[in-house]
Amino acid sequence: MSTVGLAVIGAGYWGPNLVRTAQATPALRLQWLCDLDEERARTVLGPYTTVRATTSYETVLEDPAVGAVAIATPAATHFDLVRSALEAGKHVLVEKPLTLSVAEGRKLVDLAERSGLVLMCDHTYCYTPAVRRIRELIRGGELGTVQFVDSVRINLGLVQSDIDVLWDLAPHDLSIFDFVLPDGVRPVAVAAHASDPIDAGRACVAHLTLWLSTGAMAHVHVNWLSPTKIRTTVIGGSRRTVVWDDLDPLRRVTIHDRGVDRIPQEPDRRREALISYRLGDISVPALPEQEALRGVMAEFASAIGESRPALTDGRAGLRVISLLEAATRSIENGGAIISLKESE
Amino acid sequence: MSTVGLAVIGAGYWGPNLVRTAQATPALRLQWLCDLDEERARTVLGPYTTVRATTSYETVLEDPAVGAVAIATPAATHFDLVRSALEAGKHVLVEKPLTLSVAEGRKLVDLAERSGLVLMCDHTYCYTPAVRRIRELIRGGELGTVQFVDSVRINLGLVQSDIDVLWDLAPHDLSIFDFVLPDGVRPVAVAAHASDPIDAGRACVAHLTLWLSTGAMAHVHVNWLSPTKIRTTVIGGSRRTVVWDDLDPLRRVTIHDRGVDRIPQEPDRRREALISYRLGDISVPALPEQEALRGVMAEFASAIGESRPALTDGRAGLRVISLLEAATRSIENGGAIISLKESE
Amino acid sequence: MSTVGLAVIGAGYWGPNLVRTAQATPALRLQWLCDLDEERARTVLGPYTTVRATTSYETVLEDPAVGAVAIATPAATHFDLVRSALEAGKHVLVEKPLTLSVAEGRKLVDLAERSGLVLMCDHTYCYTPAVRRIRELIRGGELGTVQFVDSVRINLGLVQSDIDVLWDLAPHDLSIFDFVLPDGVRPVAVAAHASDPIDAGRACVAHLTLWLSTGAMAHVHVNWLSPTKIRTTVIGGSRRTVVWDDLDPLRRVTIHDRGVDRIPQEPDRRREALISYRLGDISVPALPEQEALRGVMAEFASAIGESRPALTDGRAGLRVISLLEAATRSIENGGAIISLKESE
Amino acid sequence: MSTVGLAVIGAGYWGPNLVRTAQATPALRLQWLCDLDEERARTVLGPYTTVRATTSYETVLEDPAVGAVAIATPAATHFDLVRSALEAGKHVLVEKPLTLSVAEGRKLVDLAERSGLVLMCDHTYCYTPAVRRIRELIRGGELGTVQFVDSVRINLGLVQSDIDVLWDLAPHDLSIFDFVLPDGVRPVAVAAHASDPIDAGRACVAHLTLWLSTGAMAHVHVNWLSPTKIRTTVIGGSRRTVVWDDLDPLRRVTIHDRGVDRIPQEPDRRREALISYRLGDISVPALPEQEALRGVMAEFASAIGESRPALTDGRAGLRVISLLEAATRSIENGGAIISLKESE
Repeated sequence: MSTVGLAVIGAGYWGPNLVRTAQATPALRLQWLCDLDEERARTVLGPYTTVRATTSYETVLEDPAVGAVAIATPAATHFDLVRSALEAGKHVLVEKPLTLSVAEGRKLVDLAERSGLVLMCDHTYCYTPAVRRIRELIRGGELGTVQFVDSVRINLGLVQSDIDVLWDLAPHDLSIFDFVLPDGVRPVAVAAHASDPIDAGRACVAHLTLWLSTGAMAHVHVNWLSPTKIRTTVIGGSRRTVVWDDLDPLRRVTIHDRGVDRIPQEPDRRREALISYRLGDISVPALPEQEALRGVMAEFASAIGESRPALTDGRAGLRVISLLEAATRSIENGGAIISLKESE
Repeated sequence: MSTVGLAVIGAGYWGPNLVRTAQATPALRLQWLCDLDEERARTVLGPYTTVRATTSYETVLEDPAVGAVAIATPAATHFDLVRSALEAGKHVLVEKPLTLSVAEGRKLVDLAERSGLVLMCDHTYCYTPAVRRIRELIRGGELGTVQFVDSVRINLGLVQSDIDVLWDLAPHDLSIFDFVLPDGVRPVAVAAHASDPIDAGRACVAHLTLWLSTGAMAHVHVNWLSPTKIRTTVIGGSRRTVVWDDLDPLRRVTIHDRGVDRIPQEPDRRREALISYRLGDISVPALPEQEALRGVMAEFASAIGESRPALTDGRAGLRVISLLEAATRSIENGGAIISLKESE
Repeated sequence: MSTVGLAVIGAGYWGPNLVRTAQATPALRLQWLCDLDEERARTVLGPYTTVRATTSYETVLEDPAVGAVAIATPAATHFDLVRSALEAGKHVLVEKPLTLSVAEGRKLVDLAERSGLVLMCDHTYCYTPAVRRIRELIRGGELGTVQFVDSVRINLGLVQSDIDVLWDLAPHDLSIFDFVLPDGVRPVAVAAHASDPIDAGRACVAHLTLWLSTGAMAHVHVNWLSPTKIRTTVIGGSRRTVVWDDLDPLRRVTIHDRGVDRIPQEPDRRREALISYRLGDISVPALPEQEALRGVMAEFASAIGESRPALTDGRAGLRVISLLEAATRSIENGGAIISLKESE
Repeated sequence: MSTVGLAVIGAGYWGPNLVRTAQATPALRLQWLCDLDEERARTVLGPYTTVRATTSYETVLEDPAVGAVAIATPAATHFDLVRSALEAGKHVLVEKPLTLSVAEGRKLVDLAERSGLVLMCDHTYCYTPAVRRIRELIRGGELGTVQFVDSVRINLGLVQSDIDVLWDLAPHDLSIFDFVLPDGVRPVAVAAHASDPIDAGRACVAHLTLWLSTGAMAHVHVNWLSPTKIRTTVIGGSRRTVVWDDLDPLRRVTIHDRGVDRIPQEPDRRREALISYRLGDISVPALPEQEALRGVMAEFASAIGESRPALTDGRAGLRVISLLEAATRSIENGGAIISLKESE
């Protein structure tokens, strides 16, 4: 297997993780770490490295040893940086959100597809053993029909300078939904409310409601101001319910064989009699301990090597920002329900 | 202190608790347990009791030894039962929700006030040591300004035959907000979404958003279908944040001296520099172990004895159903934001 | 089914629970609550009862309507009270520990057997759904061979006036071991250490080690001084391990399909290669919500009705105090290992 | 500040962590990673490094650029490797346990002291923010007199080929006790029991009891066979009790202002009246997030730079193995209490 030369762009909060995991991926060969602040890049690389630091994105894109870039810069810069990279013939891995608008995102997706290049979104959580297992459970039919989804992602978070809490945190939840829901089940409408109680200039607390094509409702609560950290997603199904608590390393995924059933109606019985309760066991599947970001890197390298779309490709990123854009429109319109076009 | 003769009406799910705690309240003298099913009433009283069972509400209301009734019947019956009791000159303790409409609730409040009778709502949680402490924290200024509120009350719940999940569970959260928020801070608008994924004939999952007069947003998530039980309320303040986890007996209330602050703006500095983070200690106050319902009974007896409104009086119950009614209207109108009149 | 007339003796800490559950047991008919302090007995019975209070144990024993007594008095009084009751022809349920010496306990067991009376020990935990399930798991072979047992029961406990922490708390753990271990697996030796760091006049912290006939070691840690409450028992088996956390209502029993195996040795391989690890799933069985003490009462009534030994009979109580007595002897002899005679 | 040239010896389980943290320590300059398996060493270093791999310990010790070595090899090799390094004039950081006998350990300590070299034990936990805080709490008097200590360290652990569970895991607990207990409070006796239920050839479960010079008892439970992972230490004091749960990142240290007090005795009152209970608040101090091993590396470099003993020096390591050796003797003598000489 030939290796792909890689440059990481951005040595801020997330970039060091890309640098570390790229170095641990045999199919990649890290060539550059590029940042506007060369000193910061050098510090991230450390004193023992053979990888070069640079402030020049141009140099990186002109380097024929670089076949791919991994971009971890502020969201507002994604569109220009990704476009330049694709135009220079480089495969691209980009942090979420893909771009700050659907129009821009679609241009990048089109450009990548026309150019035959891999455009992959770093939807990191989709590469955790927990989310992969949940996907199998749902797509394998073990959960039955999805009845409700509830995702909470709250913490004392860094108030971002260019995006609000919805665009910062909800991409995690929305990309997970996109990944685990069965083919054909998709969001058809969205409504959202948000507030900025510390006068930060952007929403710090947001509640987002999605309606799925099956009629089920999904809810996402994101919050930068909570001193208690919660990262829990519950997906209720007609047969079982799965709970993912990312902060409980011993019980990340629990599958509950309990729920409320409605017994098909017989005409002459009262409705109350038609509800039954299942109180079965809980099981906690053994999950491997794997760093998700290594899975991201491996998938990026494989997609390039096999000339195929990545599992979380640009279209997945586009679906996520379509929901974010609709949610933002809903907030601006007093929480109005915004329908989503099927075309995305 | 003279005792008040009491009759408990309803021997279903909650009535037995009223029977038990009334018997443990020295200022009350339990006379009757009334239920349409006399056998059920006898079973609740047990074989060793001197308390009488009856199916006749009339008998109870005509008994001069009965000064007060405690009503734990289905919500749809509250209006008629409370009105009859007030008209018979009895003080009334009634389960939540007070009635199924604001118009009916207001009639009962007016009737009680005109008659000089105590009309009290059993907002049980307001009598827990945890909620009392939270009230002191907020009203004493320890939390600072309320910035956000988030309340989750989900469980595998009994699908009710006459009310949806919002009217069944949200009264708990809304009565707590009503109880702990400072005077002058009140809900000004509400929006809600709900779904019925098991086709039960009424909403089984609901999300309710409130806007407070201070601009802060409060959110309530109620759900009958969740196999995981959560009963957590987070109240974020400018100085501290309090978390109430009703299911953690060792740490029911935690006070977090951490949060995000916005430093008053200096013209020549970038906005990012203006956010600061506090990462102080957490404290877990020692709380007495007290059964809340005993506090309800004691308050009911005291309010009668002192001819004063109860702490959670009919007006408190009315404020709660005003919010529920507005939330229902919002659901019927696609999640539209419904303003609340100040008059409630 | 005819009912058995019952008297509860002792209205202190535990007596009220016996009174309450006896009243909820159809096969029993509570006649008396007897306590040296009649006012205390009356308070426990409450103002609505038809049950009589008395200070005279003699009166109780002479009452022909009393077929059985349930004794919840200080341990030092058990021997005399139980003997008198048996001599008066009454069946006896007695709190743990049965007596303060094996010699006394054996006299009671003999007396009961000679008299054809039920002598039952209130080993309450053996009647919890959790312990019953654990018993089935072990006796049904699901755990394989027991490899280790570890039980921790620590809390801020009431320093008793007549017994130390070992005699106060360890009966719980020892009676559970007695109940769940397979027939033929029994303790063969015991060693213990204890300390009294607050100079209370008796041990407040104790560690007890048991050797089972299979060679496995079991350990019990009891402590009255710990501000954190822990009640956890781990039973490690060759096939599975079960963890019982009595303070986690949502996950009281968890069964772990993981462990360390030693692969039967091949002569030419290094020892390191012979250990293998299983990392299977965890399962949390659904358990009914049942109050254990109701099960105790029901078993007491059934044993009387069927003229058979109770599940936790006097012999079980005797086996528990044999261990306690040996542990005390070990403490007095610097932690020496004390062998247990097989005869118990 | 001049940097110290470092070689890491051993690329097995722990060596990679030494390599990583050494590279992040400015005062150190990593020169070599030495392992019997050069391929393994190269894999640990990765493809981007400027650090050299070698199989020759001699080469490392002869390199004048190497001023210090960090040894992470099996315990049985420590004595020879440390001695060679000290004889070559190198400062030494060595994993726990220092050696497999007190006699050998004392030789190394003497050799280091005679040679004016730093001999430091990697008692990693002593460099966690949690343990540092606990040390301050105890030494600052906030806990009062230590009344009991209980430490549990159980998990599905790697069955070691050269040491038993006591020598593998208990050094953590014993080094922490050594670190946090006040000057003058020291272990005076030890007793232990152990078992090998899987026939692994060495103890897999062990219970160790220590008596402190103050009369308090400390207990350590170590277990390689437990599928549930627990790492909790409780230190009960006369004024407060501290609980350290290393697996709860949000509440690693909790300080409980509750306990049992004995009121100084008045001659004419009954003993029961002399015990009082405090039920105060719990506080959870905010602790910085710091990797302990970085603190180890920084301390090693500082001790070398300042020509002073390290905080966890060879003498600390010697005290730990004195306890382990005594515990082993106790196990061999049926749990007999072994006195410790004050001279250590």
